[in-house]
Amino acid sequence: MRTVKAYAAPSATEPLVPTTIERRDLGPTDVLIEIHYAGICHSDIHTVRGDWGPITYPQVVGHEIVGVVAEVGPEVTRHAVGDRVGVGCMVNSCRECENCRAGLEQYCLQGNTQTYASVDRDGTITQGGYSTHVVVVEDFVLRVPEAIPFDKAAPLLCAGVTTYSPLAHWGAGPGKKVAVVGMGGLGHMAVKLAHAMGAEVTVLSRTLSKKADGLELGADHYYATEDPATFAELANSFDLIVNTVSAVVDLGAYLSLLRLDGTLVNVGAPGEPLPVQVFTLFGNRRSFAGSSIGSIAETQEMLDFCAEHGIAPETELIGADAINEAYERVLRSDVRYRFVIDVATIA
Amino acid sequence: MRTVKAYAAPSATEPLVPTTIERRDLGPTDVLIEIHYAGICHSDIHTVRGDWGPITYPQVVGHEIVGVVAEVGPEVTRHAVGDRVGVGCMVNSCRECENCRAGLEQYCLQGNTQTYASVDRDGTITQGGYSTHVVVVEDFVLRVPEAIPFDKAAPLLCAGVTTYSPLAHWGAGPGKKVAVVGMGGLGHMAVKLAHAMGAEVTVLSRTLSKKADGLELGADHYYATEDPATFAELANSFDLIVNTVSAVVDLGAYLSLLRLDGTLVNVGAPGEPLPVQVFTLFGNRRSFAGSSIGSIAETQEMLDFCAEHGIAPETELIGADAINEAYERVLRSDVRYRFVIDVATIA
Repeated sequence: MRTVKAYAAPSATEPLVPTTIERRDLGPTDVLIEIHYAGICHSDIHTVRGDWGPITYPQVVGHEIVGVVAEVGPEVTRHAVGDRVGVGCMVNSCRECENCRAGLEQYCLQGNTQTYASVDRDGTITQGGYSTHVVVVEDFVLRVPEAIPFDKAAPLLCAGVTTYSPLAHWGAGPGKKVAVVGMGGLGHMAVKLAHAMGAEVTVLSRTLSKKADGLELGADHYYATEDPATFAELANSFDLIVNTVSAVVDLGAYLSLLRLDGTLVNVGAPGEPLPVQVFTLFGNRRSFAGSSIGSIAETQEMLDFCAEHGIAPETELIGADAINEAYERVLRSDVRYRFVIDVATIA
Repeated sequence: MRTVKAYAAPSATEPLVPTTIERRDLGPTDVLIEIHYAGICHSDIHTVRGDWGPITYPQVVGHEIVGVVAEVGPEVTRHAVGDRVGVGCMVNSCRECENCRAGLEQYCLQGNTQTYASVDRDGTITQGGYSTHVVVVEDFVLRVPEAIPFDKAAPLLCAGVTTYSPLAHWGAGPGKKVAVVGMGGLGHMAVKLAHAMGAEVTVLSRTLSKKADGLELGADHYYATEDPATFAELANSFDLIVNTVSAVVDLGAYLSLLRLDGTLVNVGAPGEPLPVQVFTLFGNRRSFAGSSIGSIAETQEMLDFCAEHGIAPETELIGADAINEAYERVLRSDVRYRFVIDVATIA
């Protein structure tokens, strides 16, 4: 065991505070990573505040992690000391179910082991990336290409792959019209990625306040959803809609924008159920689907795609002492577009 | 114009009664069909009783129509006097929108012209198949193969194609596990068709009362949904679920039965919205979709498929004077599995 520094939530209602946590000794296939940067995901906030159910405290969150390999177990073959690496939302899975065998560990039927607040294979509760070091089995460690600025690579591990995966799976590309709902951490990545894939990209945001940004990031069109004329004008027009909003929206209004055989994929995770009118799905043979992060192989593919296309998130680098203030700003959507913690400030 | 005999609903609350209606003179591409048989679809009842919104009365319903061509317009090339033909849920569409041009008239963006209770291209209200004759433009008239018993062919025009289309579109076939929810008019056809396509078929019905029938019709497995153990046992197992139930069901319970990339397709049309938990869609990257009847080309393909595989619905032939009693029996699910009206009894 080794004791490392971290920022943890002591309870659902208190601010995060500096503390220390234990990391396990390296197993044969484990990698010790010295963390350099950790992104702040809205899921971190939902988790520590108990929005998705009760958790055990203290809890360290953070699942957008990049760092450098500091030590490797004796059987590690995929990574070497000094490598730039990343860890996303998962640190393990059962590796035996049909989904794991198909290389889609994010859909592990036993439940994958999440990077934080999850019961690890050894029975302990996983602790996330707001920390100086983490130990992860090598198969769940990604290579971060040199072409991606290191601090900006962190959000790719969640926001990047969570939007890349549905865009790739549902065929975003030349000739396809893709709408992105929401211009936040996930949404702005969806715009960049869909544009790089060759799709015609439309942003559907509540207001036009981020329109200049959206067009700059690669959107072809930008509409305000607070204007009802938007829904009349865009009816039956999209092949794919990626909904990044975690609140309850008027799903029927968005579904009506899908053309023949179009799919609306939610990557946002509202706690309440969304009411769906079957008659809206009858029109154009529409589908409403969900997509959860991406596989390890797909995460690597996304990192390599971003390196090749010069894609990185828009970020604001902060010190660890600004985490609590950053949470408040995320909650009021006052961030363009992702906070990244400089983990050197935790050490 | 010609005056023909029919059975019509005088209002939302009165029984159907014998009457006469007008059929238009034959246009250049019209076909006059002497109707022999008309199926009774649950939609007929919903429509005449105003469940799906107010309609104009008197209204003749019926969109599972078979008969013999009695006369053709001068430019008709696809059908000849004496041919066995059928008419389903649509009698026309705009023919100009992208969906019509793609040969998917059921998804006409202007709204296809339904066989009854729809505004026809000439402004009149369409009148359905509980009638001795109907005039339909030839492109929306199907050929009924000799191999299919004529009275049993009628329900194929709605119940047949409505289940065939999603099974074909979502790839039911060898190696695929398909569940059919509901063992009524649509459900029993879905079982026969999915079995003939080579899929492994499971019926999910409220009770086991129709289990012997289900297995006889081609189901490999049959489960009662009133038994909660069913949902635990079948979790993550189906590639495709066709939900034929028009009432509100616990959709989450059914979605949880889908395996990786599985789709639950509703062909049943509940009036109320169905609440969907996004987290259930996240698991296995599930989809919830809708499917509306099938195209004209697909309806012909289905008829030819049924002829080739010896498939026909289970029917109970009735005289027109038994229509009202049949409606009551449909409403209490007391029919195995489709009523067909012998239209000779209207004449």
